[in-house]
Amino acid sequence: MNGGILKTNAYILSAGTVVGKKEFDGPLGAKFDFHSEDDRFGMDTWERAEGEMQRRALSSALAKANMEDGELGAIFAGDLLNQCVSSANGLISFDTPFFGLYGACSTIAEGLMLASAIVSAGYFDTAAAVTSSHNAAAERQFRTPIEYGGQRPPTGQWTVTGSGAFILASEQYAKRRAPLARISECMPGIVIERGITDANNMGAAMAPAAESTLLRFFKESGTRPEDYDLIATGDLGYEGAAILSELMESEGYTLGKNYCDCGMMMFSRSTQDTHCGGSGCACSATVFGAHILPRIYEGELKRVIIMGTGALMSPDTVKQGDPIAGIGHLVVAEHIEEAENGCMD
Amino acid sequence: MNGGILKTNAYILSAGTVVGKKEFDGPLGAKFDFHSEDDRFGMDTWERAEGEMQRRALSSALAKANMEDGELGAIFAGDLLNQCVSSANGLISFDTPFFGLYGACSTIAEGLMLASAIVSAGYFDTAAAVTSSHNAAAERQFRTPIEYGGQRPPTGQWTVTGSGAFILASEQYAKRRAPLARISECMPGIVIERGITDANNMGAAMAPAAESTLLRFFKESGTRPEDYDLIATGDLGYEGAAILSELMESEGYTLGKNYCDCGMMMFSRSTQDTHCGGSGCACSATVFGAHILPRIYEGELKRVIIMGTGALMSPDTVKQGDPIAGIGHLVVAEHIEEAENGCMD
Repeated sequence: MNGGILKTNAYILSAGTVVGKKEFDGPLGAKFDFHSEDDRFGMDTWERAEGEMQRRALSSALAKANMEDGELGAIFAGDLLNQCVSSANGLISFDTPFFGLYGACSTIAEGLMLASAIVSAGYFDTAAAVTSSHNAAAERQFRTPIEYGGQRPPTGQWTVTGSGAFILASEQYAKRRAPLARISECMPGIVIERGITDANNMGAAMAPAAESTLLRFFKESGTRPEDYDLIATGDLGYEGAAILSELMESEGYTLGKNYCDCGMMMFSRSTQDTHCGGSGCACSATVFGAHILPRIYEGELKRVIIMGTGALMSPDTVKQGDPIAGIGHLVVAEHIEEAENGCMD
Repeated sequence: MNGGILKTNAYILSAGTVVGKKEFDGPLGAKFDFHSEDDRFGMDTWERAEGEMQRRALSSALAKANMEDGELGAIFAGDLLNQCVSSANGLISFDTPFFGLYGACSTIAEGLMLASAIVSAGYFDTAAAVTSSHNAAAERQFRTPIEYGGQRPPTGQWTVTGSGAFILASEQYAKRRAPLARISECMPGIVIERGITDANNMGAAMAPAAESTLLRFFKESGTRPEDYDLIATGDLGYEGAAILSELMESEGYTLGKNYCDCGMMMFSRSTQDTHCGGSGCACSATVFGAHILPRIYEGELKRVIIMGTGALMSPDTVKQGDPIAGIGHLVVAEHIEEAENGCMD
């Protein structure tokens, strides 16, 4: 096999984030661009509400990047709904070349990776990566409708209602905008399955996939956890993050205090009853867009690993008793000093 | 927007194709690499059978390309099953970086496009594009289980049971193998929706999307339908192909006798009762791999448009009465003369 690291040079022009009520009430609430008090976003189904969140998130990102209608080269998007319908329906109004993705909750990392590769190679000047999840749409699809009132086990996580959109640009295009962050390296995940069959224990199903990608990345790059100001997994939650830390420790890599999981950052453990934390495509997308990326822009964080994690299961295969495979897609986001961003001339 | 055409230089090393019994009994039957007499491929669920077809198709393609285990750089794969589980599960044994896609029945064109772009840009030496569909798995997911015996309307199509896999390689890598075909241009589709809500009339839902991409492609490339030896849409079927021809005619482009649809090639209209023809991710993948690509290798076809077509609907949104959006992804495959393929030295 060729080396697994993709060297990219894609500038992150902006991010747009949208969340639901519970997410707005969490510790990061004030950082998101928009929220809805009733999680409906003015639509009459949860599925359409999810699409509407994607539309708003991408609109917000485009506005922040000062981009005009029709300027965007391509969209890379996907979500958790069957056949990724909220991406297709929610983004239809942008009238832009569309690449549909499916990476479960790792979708935003897969999208950032492919969008970065495509703009770095010069195929398009700009590309967007977009994803979403909606708690009510996900519950009735993967588990039971919320009205059923099923009890959640301690390892259960809370699917985040939200959407995140990012605009990536080539170096040449980015010079006009002077962004202060770029994606410099990406490593696609390998599908890993270790026998977990419980759809309420996704952290355990995904942790070995996160370990696989992190190990390959540290070995190939010759770096170690302490070389990064932050390593953020997508939605392993408290259970999965503890498993990942143990797995990495046994391989000689201590993740340490710079490691955190977006699912642990989204909700308050003491006041919001989500058991093992947040999950869903929107979890890493909104936490990265609203909480981590601004700190990279400001230079507080110089070099960050975003490790998107996804559980590759479907409601059908879970009912058939199949084990749940996981995948972990990794991107490295870096702060760019003003003097380096090529915009001083 | 930047121009929509991606200029690529990706060599098609090989294709592997697998089909079910009905497809084997059709006019192209003898051309496919493998078939199963009972559509089960030795598995105990249709969903696992679909994954097994992907595994066999990629194994076949790798064998034809004389590639060793672990030599493949990345896989781009997706399918029609909820959460694309047959791709994730079927390809897990290859232990290769995995990009999950969702383009409905246009997935193989989306995969060929992204794999071509990624190897042309030098990120990986080789990449595979893989997809599948299974009639029995698709029927029970999108319509009703086959045992229910629901009557199919005249505009209905028959989801193809099968899988197609392609190995793409960079020019440098391909020199060692001397392939005689390459993907030279790609154009991603834009999501288009024209109000069709009938899940048994997919051809009509997808035709406007195929028109959108074809028109943009002819205009940007300055070419016309007669510049291609074959224009093959993925699975518009008899109904959708007639609509596309009319739509193109009204824009001043006569598709003419070089136009055909893979859904019309797969089954015999007179002896196999499929109404409007074949459909599903496997339709264009297997017809391109087993029937069209060999004629490009041989030089009988010099320049071909493969126009993957997808209906971006989910069972949930169809029940909710939402209209079905379509997408059309386009790739141009060209014959390479032996003297040009860089292998004479």
